[in-house]
Amino acid sequence: MPVGMARRSAVSLVRLGGRAVGQLLCGGSARLLRTSAANTSPSPGFKPEKVAVVTKTTRYEFEQQRDKSEEELTQQLALKGSSYTGLQERHNIHTYNVEHIVKSLRSEGIDVRVVKRGEYDEEVVRWADAIISAGGDGTMLLVASKVLSKNKPVVGVNTDPERSEGHLCLPVRYTRAFPEALEKLCRGEFRWLWRQRIRVQLEGTGINPRPVDLHEQQLSLVQHSQAHRIATMDRQHKTGTLPESSSEPSLLPIRSLNEIFIGESLSSRVKLKSFKPHVNLLLHRASYYEISVDDGPWEKQKSSGLSICTGTGSKAWSYNINKLAEQAVEELLMIGKSLTRLDIPLNPEFIAKVTDEYNASLVFGPDDRRLFYSIREPIVNRVFSSSRQRGFANKVCVRSRCWNACMVVDGGTSYKFNDGAIATISMSEEDQLRTVVLEN
Amino acid sequence: MPVGMARRSAVSLVRLGGRAVGQLLCGGSARLLRTSAANTSPSPGFKPEKVAVVTKTTRYEFEQQRDKSEEELTQQLALKGSSYTGLQERHNIHTYNVEHIVKSLRSEGIDVRVVKRGEYDEEVVRWADAIISAGGDGTMLLVASKVLSKNKPVVGVNTDPERSEGHLCLPVRYTRAFPEALEKLCRGEFRWLWRQRIRVQLEGTGINPRPVDLHEQQLSLVQHSQAHRIATMDRQHKTGTLPESSSEPSLLPIRSLNEIFIGESLSSRVKLKSFKPHVNLLLHRASYYEISVDDGPWEKQKSSGLSICTGTGSKAWSYNINKLAEQAVEELLMIGKSLTRLDIPLNPEFIAKVTDEYNASLVFGPDDRRLFYSIREPIVNRVFSSSRQRGFANKVCVRSRCWNACMVVDGGTSYKFNDGAIATISMSEEDQLRTVVLEN
Repeated sequence: MPVGMARRSAVSLVRLGGRAVGQLLCGGSARLLRTSAANTSPSPGFKPEKVAVVTKTTRYEFEQQRDKSEEELTQQLALKGSSYTGLQERHNIHTYNVEHIVKSLRSEGIDVRVVKRGEYDEEVVRWADAIISAGGDGTMLLVASKVLSKNKPVVGVNTDPERSEGHLCLPVRYTRAFPEALEKLCRGEFRWLWRQRIRVQLEGTGINPRPVDLHEQQLSLVQHSQAHRIATMDRQHKTGTLPESSSEPSLLPIRSLNEIFIGESLSSRVKLKSFKPHVNLLLHRASYYEISVDDGPWEKQKSSGLSICTGTGSKAWSYNINKLAEQAVEELLMIGKSLTRLDIPLNPEFIAKVTDEYNASLVFGPDDRRLFYSIREPIVNRVFSSSRQRGFANKVCVRSRCWNACMVVDGGTSYKFNDGAIATISMSEEDQLRTVVLEN
Repeated sequence: MPVGMARRSAVSLVRLGGRAVGQLLCGGSARLLRTSAANTSPSPGFKPEKVAVVTKTTRYEFEQQRDKSEEELTQQLALKGSSYTGLQERHNIHTYNVEHIVKSLRSEGIDVRVVKRGEYDEEVVRWADAIISAGGDGTMLLVASKVLSKNKPVVGVNTDPERSEGHLCLPVRYTRAFPEALEKLCRGEFRWLWRQRIRVQLEGTGINPRPVDLHEQQLSLVQHSQAHRIATMDRQHKTGTLPESSSEPSLLPIRSLNEIFIGESLSSRVKLKSFKPHVNLLLHRASYYEISVDDGPWEKQKSSGLSICTGTGSKAWSYNINKLAEQAVEELLMIGKSLTRLDIPLNPEFIAKVTDEYNASLVFGPDDRRLFYSIREPIVNRVFSSSRQRGFANKVCVRSRCWNACMVVDGGTSYKFNDGAIATISMSEEDQLRTVVLEN
């Protein structure tokens, strides 16, 4: 395919198997067209005209917002064994990396908008041809959460590699060598990866359509106090918002990139005017619910909660719920050995090998169309039992029997999910998120 | 030893190995003296003069407190698939069982005070010769939480055996046959069991000495709104209360019967006046902390939390954190089989056997003087690692690196445990709880 034409040259369309295959030229139009049916085939070059860079809030910025003087904060941190200098350093590293990204983009003639996570909304998504998440995995999840189209590319750059795993981000070396990444994107030396996401349909009473943004609760005092008011106003203005307590099934306006987690939480039911703000509430009660997998029979369960994840999410919380420690594997093999009298090896290398293979089996591909459900700490006793503790599915239905449960999407947004509410959790191709895979 | 003397007859003291061994006669003085050095040896008869019966709050009573009309409540419950009749039934069963207990006690000439859990306090503990918990395991934990002496007997009666496991209660048959239980107690046909409990010393900043009673948050709107005010007043009136933010080590006025759980929670940091009361907050962020076992080296960890349990608690939350499902055991043995080519059995009976033996190894005796620590969902990656996921210890020190962590005692009381605070968790013989073991 020819390259190197002038800006705004026509994009030639070739129809392939009923789908339009577009050729995007370096310096050409920013319109993106799907390449081929395969989710991860090599691509024509990609050069957007307008890029939004969404940045995380560093802990330094968060502490600044609390209006403490520098001496006050330094002293507080010192007492805790942390250091003000340390916070500043991390902040500076992040800021430096963001500037590097922005500079690289602008020197390619790309129109860049830098947006703090608190300012990031649907208008930014509409404006941008592509969105870069500048932070860690949490920022990437936030960025993805507002992208409902499967055609808008999202790219994650890990701006603090020493602190963040960056599973959802480009390989770490591109953080300081971003022009290289841009170059490869332009030349088509990358692959698109359409990550499957989860959709949720809710029905029944006890649904609070006013989601609470859990990240904002952590990171911004001002914004959090507005969160509920905004959510209330949004509800009235948005299309497709849910009525107050409806028994009609409603599709939630979110798509989960990692997982849906359903669990009991304590909520404060009283007028909190009289309290100091530091009310500590904790997820601790067992969660009661009924579950039906792939239209199978309903089963009553009691556990610490239910996780339903995507392939992307199979490396995240779901992984930590299900993985085994070598200590447990060793003890199990010892029992097996003593019961069978077989010569099962118990040396550290073999234990590690079995453990690694077991844990690796928990991870599956981001483009896999299946869900993976896991029951966290199932409670099995005279009253409750469960057949399978985890497995793949195409659809999972959950009926809440909880006092005060939440449905948490990607650890960032929380919906009330109380006694009687029914969630139908599934995947649809149109919910995919378009991301980039660069070779390391 | 002679039996059957008149009331208030002298208790003869025999010194045995430096400890006073008392003989308590049926109908005699209610003073209790330790029997012998062994924690569970057969006992002389036990007949208290004054018994407090502490009752749980049923869900029916809870809903009543919310001032709904019966029709309103019925309709609400029906929409949720629950039933008003069902709630009433459970309530009636509980109430019937409580009346049975009280009647049995009074017909033996025992002075009985029936106390709702919300009214249960140190004055009741001082007044009573023995305390009966009439509810489930949760009620038993509450009752025990206010008994700091190792000499005050606590007996649990399960008033809703169909709903509650009743691990900490008398065998289920005594619920409807309580006079039999009393008879056996009187005749000495029982054993004392001194259950070891955990004590916590806290130091460093970030400590909120105003504990929050989590059960009250669930069960009583009025009481919860008072909880913080009461806790504040208590702090000023109680002996041994902690100063506001001290760096002096302070022994918390609690003893844990099941476990201490340390974990991150989200707390609302803003003025909540503007919110509707339904703010859902969730334990979801990873917990950061450092841990030192038995004065060993400090290790930085990241996980879903840390559980430190007693022998009693080894059957509770700790068990659910650590137990394995047959599905996991089967998959592990399959991997072992394929890697070794040994003829490891994979039939359901063998899988069940290995699983049961593994899970049984997680449980240990209530009178065991050791703690058992477990790291819940440890996060092991480039940044963090951990050596042992669980084990026995005599002492565990934890230093919080959390934003908003709680230390939760027996799932019922919560202390703030934030960045910099250090908890020293251990056991002392004087912290035992005196309970009763009746043969079934």
